[in-house]
Amino acid sequence: MQNLDVYISEILAEDLGPGVRDVSVFSLGNASERIAKGRVVAKSDGVISGLWLVEKVLKEVEKFSRPVSMFLCPARVEYMCKDGDFASSGTLIAEINGPVGTLLTSERTILNLLQRLSGVATLTRSFVEAIKGSKSQILDTRKTTPGMRSLEKLAVRHGGGMNHRFGLYDMVMLKDNHITAMGGKIKSAISNARQLVGPTLKIEVEVANLVQFEEALNTDVDMIMLDNMTPSEMKKCVEIAAGKVPLEASGGITLESVKKVAETGVDYISVGALTHSAKALDISMKISF
Amino acid sequence: MQNLDVYISEILAEDLGPGVRDVSVFSLGNASERIAKGRVVAKSDGVISGLWLVEKVLKEVEKFSRPVSMFLCPARVEYMCKDGDFASSGTLIAEINGPVGTLLTSERTILNLLQRLSGVATLTRSFVEAIKGSKSQILDTRKTTPGMRSLEKLAVRHGGGMNHRFGLYDMVMLKDNHITAMGGKIKSAISNARQLVGPTLKIEVEVANLVQFEEALNTDVDMIMLDNMTPSEMKKCVEIAAGKVPLEASGGITLESVKKVAETGVDYISVGALTHSAKALDISMKISF
Amino acid sequence: MQNLDVYISEILAEDLGPGVRDVSVFSLGNASERIAKGRVVAKSDGVISGLWLVEKVLKEVEKFSRPVSMFLCPARVEYMCKDGDFASSGTLIAEINGPVGTLLTSERTILNLLQRLSGVATLTRSFVEAIKGSKSQILDTRKTTPGMRSLEKLAVRHGGGMNHRFGLYDMVMLKDNHITAMGGKIKSAISNARQLVGPTLKIEVEVANLVQFEEALNTDVDMIMLDNMTPSEMKKCVEIAAGKVPLEASGGITLESVKKVAETGVDYISVGALTHSAKALDISMKISF
Amino acid sequence: MQNLDVYISEILAEDLGPGVRDVSVFSLGNASERIAKGRVVAKSDGVISGLWLVEKVLKEVEKFSRPVSMFLCPARVEYMCKDGDFASSGTLIAEINGPVGTLLTSERTILNLLQRLSGVATLTRSFVEAIKGSKSQILDTRKTTPGMRSLEKLAVRHGGGMNHRFGLYDMVMLKDNHITAMGGKIKSAISNARQLVGPTLKIEVEVANLVQFEEALNTDVDMIMLDNMTPSEMKKCVEIAAGKVPLEASGGITLESVKKVAETGVDYISVGALTHSAKALDISMKISF
Amino acid sequence: MQNLDVYISEILAEDLGPGVRDVSVFSLGNASERIAKGRVVAKSDGVISGLWLVEKVLKEVEKFSRPVSMFLCPARVEYMCKDGDFASSGTLIAEINGPVGTLLTSERTILNLLQRLSGVATLTRSFVEAIKGSKSQILDTRKTTPGMRSLEKLAVRHGGGMNHRFGLYDMVMLKDNHITAMGGKIKSAISNARQLVGPTLKIEVEVANLVQFEEALNTDVDMIMLDNMTPSEMKKCVEIAAGKVPLEASGGITLESVKKVAETGVDYISVGALTHSAKALDISMKISF
Amino acid sequence: MQNLDVYISEILAEDLGPGVRDVSVFSLGNASERIAKGRVVAKSDGVISGLWLVEKVLKEVEKFSRPVSMFLCPARVEYMCKDGDFASSGTLIAEINGPVGTLLTSERTILNLLQRLSGVATLTRSFVEAIKGSKSQILDTRKTTPGMRSLEKLAVRHGGGMNHRFGLYDMVMLKDNHITAMGGKIKSAISNARQLVGPTLKIEVEVANLVQFEEALNTDVDMIMLDNMTPSEMKKCVEIAAGKVPLEASGGITLESVKKVAETGVDYISVGALTHSAKALDISMKISF
Repeated sequence: MQNLDVYISEILAEDLGPGVRDVSVFSLGNASERIAKGRVVAKSDGVISGLWLVEKVLKEVEKFSRPVSMFLCPARVEYMCKDGDFASSGTLIAEINGPVGTLLTSERTILNLLQRLSGVATLTRSFVEAIKGSKSQILDTRKTTPGMRSLEKLAVRHGGGMNHRFGLYDMVMLKDNHITAMGGKIKSAISNARQLVGPTLKIEVEVANLVQFEEALNTDVDMIMLDNMTPSEMKKCVEIAAGKVPLEASGGITLESVKKVAETGVDYISVGALTHSAKALDISMKISF
Repeated sequence: MQNLDVYISEILAEDLGPGVRDVSVFSLGNASERIAKGRVVAKSDGVISGLWLVEKVLKEVEKFSRPVSMFLCPARVEYMCKDGDFASSGTLIAEINGPVGTLLTSERTILNLLQRLSGVATLTRSFVEAIKGSKSQILDTRKTTPGMRSLEKLAVRHGGGMNHRFGLYDMVMLKDNHITAMGGKIKSAISNARQLVGPTLKIEVEVANLVQFEEALNTDVDMIMLDNMTPSEMKKCVEIAAGKVPLEASGGITLESVKKVAETGVDYISVGALTHSAKALDISMKISF
Repeated sequence: MQNLDVYISEILAEDLGPGVRDVSVFSLGNASERIAKGRVVAKSDGVISGLWLVEKVLKEVEKFSRPVSMFLCPARVEYMCKDGDFASSGTLIAEINGPVGTLLTSERTILNLLQRLSGVATLTRSFVEAIKGSKSQILDTRKTTPGMRSLEKLAVRHGGGMNHRFGLYDMVMLKDNHITAMGGKIKSAISNARQLVGPTLKIEVEVANLVQFEEALNTDVDMIMLDNMTPSEMKKCVEIAAGKVPLEASGGITLESVKKVAETGVDYISVGALTHSAKALDISMKISF
Repeated sequence: MQNLDVYISEILAEDLGPGVRDVSVFSLGNASERIAKGRVVAKSDGVISGLWLVEKVLKEVEKFSRPVSMFLCPARVEYMCKDGDFASSGTLIAEINGPVGTLLTSERTILNLLQRLSGVATLTRSFVEAIKGSKSQILDTRKTTPGMRSLEKLAVRHGGGMNHRFGLYDMVMLKDNHITAMGGKIKSAISNARQLVGPTLKIEVEVANLVQFEEALNTDVDMIMLDNMTPSEMKKCVEIAAGKVPLEASGGITLESVKKVAETGVDYISVGALTHSAKALDISMKISF
Repeated sequence: MQNLDVYISEILAEDLGPGVRDVSVFSLGNASERIAKGRVVAKSDGVISGLWLVEKVLKEVEKFSRPVSMFLCPARVEYMCKDGDFASSGTLIAEINGPVGTLLTSERTILNLLQRLSGVATLTRSFVEAIKGSKSQILDTRKTTPGMRSLEKLAVRHGGGMNHRFGLYDMVMLKDNHITAMGGKIKSAISNARQLVGPTLKIEVEVANLVQFEEALNTDVDMIMLDNMTPSEMKKCVEIAAGKVPLEASGGITLESVKKVAETGVDYISVGALTHSAKALDISMKISF
Repeated sequence: MQNLDVYISEILAEDLGPGVRDVSVFSLGNASERIAKGRVVAKSDGVISGLWLVEKVLKEVEKFSRPVSMFLCPARVEYMCKDGDFASSGTLIAEINGPVGTLLTSERTILNLLQRLSGVATLTRSFVEAIKGSKSQILDTRKTTPGMRSLEKLAVRHGGGMNHRFGLYDMVMLKDNHITAMGGKIKSAISNARQLVGPTLKIEVEVANLVQFEEALNTDVDMIMLDNMTPSEMKKCVEIAAGKVPLEASGGITLESVKKVAETGVDYISVGALTHSAKALDISMKISF
């Protein structure tokens, strides 16, 4: 998602087709210009994310709508919440005033964005709540929806989580296969990597057991990922590390297991489910005249 | 997602950044060219969708990888499944042979696509299974992931479902707000719509109760959506319609409730959850040398 | 033509080149900023289409013009007609006020669009007029100018015609080759197609003679195209169909023959010439200071 | 039309929609992979242009078709003509062998391109034939189809014409408005222009009468356009110029009037109708198995 | 650089990455919205070029910045210079007022553009000054930075130079290899070229010695390039040409040698170094609160 | 430069224009297909960078060339050097065999890329050589050519340098203005930043004097930039830091001063001139038949 305007234009194109027409709104004829009010309302409890996209979708739809009606009255949005707010079921999130055609054409795209991103924010918040009181922090992963990574990473922050690396480009992560490819030794793998990528990037290494962990700790690695360890193994790692380097727990962590993981004292807990398995938050738009 | 090559290029760009570099693979130096085998394996039971994208991702990654290594050996894929196949946990789905750098750089993008699409196909299949024996068919909706609609609609077919309209452009759908905007009468709304959109598109109308249903039935509408009706209301509609026009049940239908809905005799059951709330299917890539 | 702004930008790029300069306007130096009036005038009788694009072209040209003159006065348009209006020769269609450089640079692009689209609208109106009083309606085809389909389909509506399908995506059309490929039987072809595409799309079938016609009528096809039939054959089809399904006449129909076709009682008459052989309507821009 | 691959992709997108599917071919199921032969045949006499695009369209369609059928057999083209050849009605122009689905999906796009471009080439040839024996040459104008200028200019060459400037960027053309804006004097307008655009571009000036013509001749202009003059006025200009500078006749010249214009001895005759009012050449694709 | 908005968006994308975030500005939290003043100041003497891009960069950055802060105050620019002005070291060129985050994010992109383009303008001016009093004019070449040709050609004009051809498309240039490929004769090469490209483009021919020069002079070529000749050879050419056709000196001309070249009386002197070896002009942005 | 293929296509478009034609090659007619050999030769000593782009340019040109000649023989490249090699003047770098038209059309684009990138690599190598024997390493900056950052950063590596951050997205850099905006205290600025950006990115802080340096050293910053300090100040910083954190010298460092800077013992020396003021390396293509 390099350029947000291009992205919004692409997802609308997906809905409007190359003829750029909402045939249902087109069926309304001039009635599509009647001014209506669209009330965006949460239908279950959750954290809102994606509100800042609402106006962008409306702007794009207005561009597309021009042929139907030459001087279309622009829609206006009033926000009752902001991204990151918790909304209980029934909360009015935003109100859009404009031609009913504009509202109807943009409704599904706005809701698809808001529901998915708020779903991510809400699930993140559940994880954050589950470990409240611990010193651990919830991180996302790269297991994001293709095309929506930066939006979903923003949703994670709205839910109270922190971001892990954004891509393959902003941190070195050496997993078992990287290390095997480089000959199997963690220490030399890390020093080779440092030599090649220069001084500006952090290097994290993934370890699967205590032997590897101690080998990793004995280097100037910047972060260590404890992959699929049991809580007791993690706890041992935390003790051995003694704060020398930040530790990240990773691997199939669920809402049920996350508290146990946090109690081991790891600094970070990364959770793929935040983005790959969040359910959409139920949000609807009620239109009235 | 107008052009698939552009889409694949964009989602890789999201992961590789403008410097177009996987800094972890870059850290391997020449070791990134070692030939390895990547085994794509299902880690839980499900229906596979998205396999046809694997080679496209690899081709794109190879383009991006060129600066590192001028004459990179191309990766090759062997498929053990095809899209739409059911794979039980542990099934080898595909095997990729190529430089380890190519495998590592493409791994997450391939899995993000496969996991999400297979999640959609798998959830679809659950719904299809749940109503087996009935004459109803499961339909998707427009509640898809922004940017992935056509891929997700293909996944729905892989899971045994059928597709509802692809967008705002290929069928007229008159909901309550459309009808209100046109004056409130279903009959005149439909004939106005037919006059404006011409003869090539079907018109579906949404009704919320029996009064509206009978009003709709009394027109030459092509399909009627029963919105949030109870099973007993739906059953009455089915009886009254007597096959004159296809009926679609819609509104918050779950795996628990779907069988009851099918038993009413409706022709189609549309389920937003297929695409807005499917969990990723667990699939991994095991790399070995 | 997915995104209209991109389209306008591309057709201007075609005229301005990668150096983005109108060398003739550049030759004017500061004189290019003198305010002038451009009067867009019909030079022969016809139906206007494309007026809504005029401002978009001017906006794009103003973006391109910026380097020459940092704070260029924006051009403004006053419309004396609207799309779909009939203008007799000499009619003032619109008046543009702005820097003469902006007018000169945009003149040809504006006229190329207006002339072509108004040509389509005008030819459509001739066909519509030719069958006035009949119950038939004029339809366009997919024989449009590559890149301009949606604009030309809008022009057809401005001329009083209706739109046939917009592309390969919004209606199933089974021609002889489709049916041959599926084994040669119309009935089974249609039921296979319905099974595969689901309930949302209409299916039209092309027939070339009465035998095929009766076979088609005996299915639940949504529309039948009578391909290159004689008026007397068509008339027979109309009688046999007796309103059961809409009929479309197609194949080399001209302004001379269209009335005879309409008299057969077919519902729709599709005419490729509307878009593939319309002559540009003569429209000019007169600039004065 | 900056990049031809992008252009072909865009015009196919227009036909295939964002779901990228030909629903009629999709209806064929596996039958869409049956190998067929498509014979591209001229249905009236004309000059062929656009053959070089046929393979590009097929390549693009094959990309789009991949999801339906993972390992689609590629189509192959054999050419019986080349661009610029005259084909009499009934001539086999090219033969395409490949899956019937590929042929059906690409048929209309191929024909839309071939028919329009061959229409331009054919009309050009008529003008060229009409002045055979004279020393004049037929030029095109900038009155081209938006988005297709370079293709149409190539078609003009295929028809035996020559190209006028390609856009606003490759020649200075001073019309009455340019000269008025610069103060009204042709001589100073041309010397100002030469000073500003540098030495690499030709400057042409438009004149409407003999007084302006003599004023223009008295400068170092590179070409003079005689705008809407009568043949006798043009003849006088030719005599006065005496070969000092090339002369171009312009303004509403038709197939009927062009010979008279050529007889005046002008060097070039520019004809907007070549591109703005050419009728499509009738070409069809016959598919057989 | 077809479309400037796309170009600006691309170069910002290069700096901001697919996550579209300036992590340093992001680190400021709400402090990024504090209003600050950015003073753009010349740090050495030179000719300014590129000022017209400053606002475009800011506009683009503001689009990108939206997610961080929903209603960001837009930045405003006041210009103390205009493109083409000479600024001595210490001169205040422009002042930007706006949120410090906007200023910090756009600072480097603005300076990279301004410094490079002003470097080109400044070097051009040095060449122009070096030959002051002569009748020769300084031309640029096609040896420009890939992607920036039109901006650099504008910078050359700001420095007082003139532009040679913009690309391969707006002038014919026959070098030794072209002539060899066509059989080795300059005269026939030129007449063939004229026949093929039509009347609208100038033809320049490159000659390396007096024999070739006299052969070229004996044609109706529009300009002759004297390639790597000594000043005395050039002088002889000037005498022989006697103003019949413009002459261009070319080949490794430096600030040291250019005066000697100008004294030969050639009309134009083209200098590749203007664009391929200009040093960035030192310009900085000082931010204060 | 998100997608290299798009970039190459864009820079060729800049040279070929929307008509996509090299009018000089077009002038050759069929002679443009004669097979020729292009010898790419270094004309002065330097480090080569950009060779991997040569084939990509040729591939793109061949796409563009298709209309002229339907079945163009593809060009082939043989490499005598590889990127990063030092070539002395006269060295044959690569040899291209193919149609002379392809060679002539691609010549300038290939050379513009090679010359600029090799210029960067060569200047980098001079800096690396100048500090040979010291423990310091040469870093680049973000002062790159807009649109070419990743290519130039690769060139820096070919010249023996290391890369600083690639953009605003992969490292936090707190300069004086960032710290002022956050209240002026380095320590709190760094801990705020760490809290906001999460654990994956390094934080560097810029200091201008010893007081600031000691304040910075007293935090857990990952790198410290010594901005415009004198060698003796730097030396003091090196002593105080005692290896605790990497130090980077920055600010107007030249080939003359770099050795003195290296002798202070700083870890890294960043040099903007590597990319903003490198002169093109002289490279030419000699064509023969």
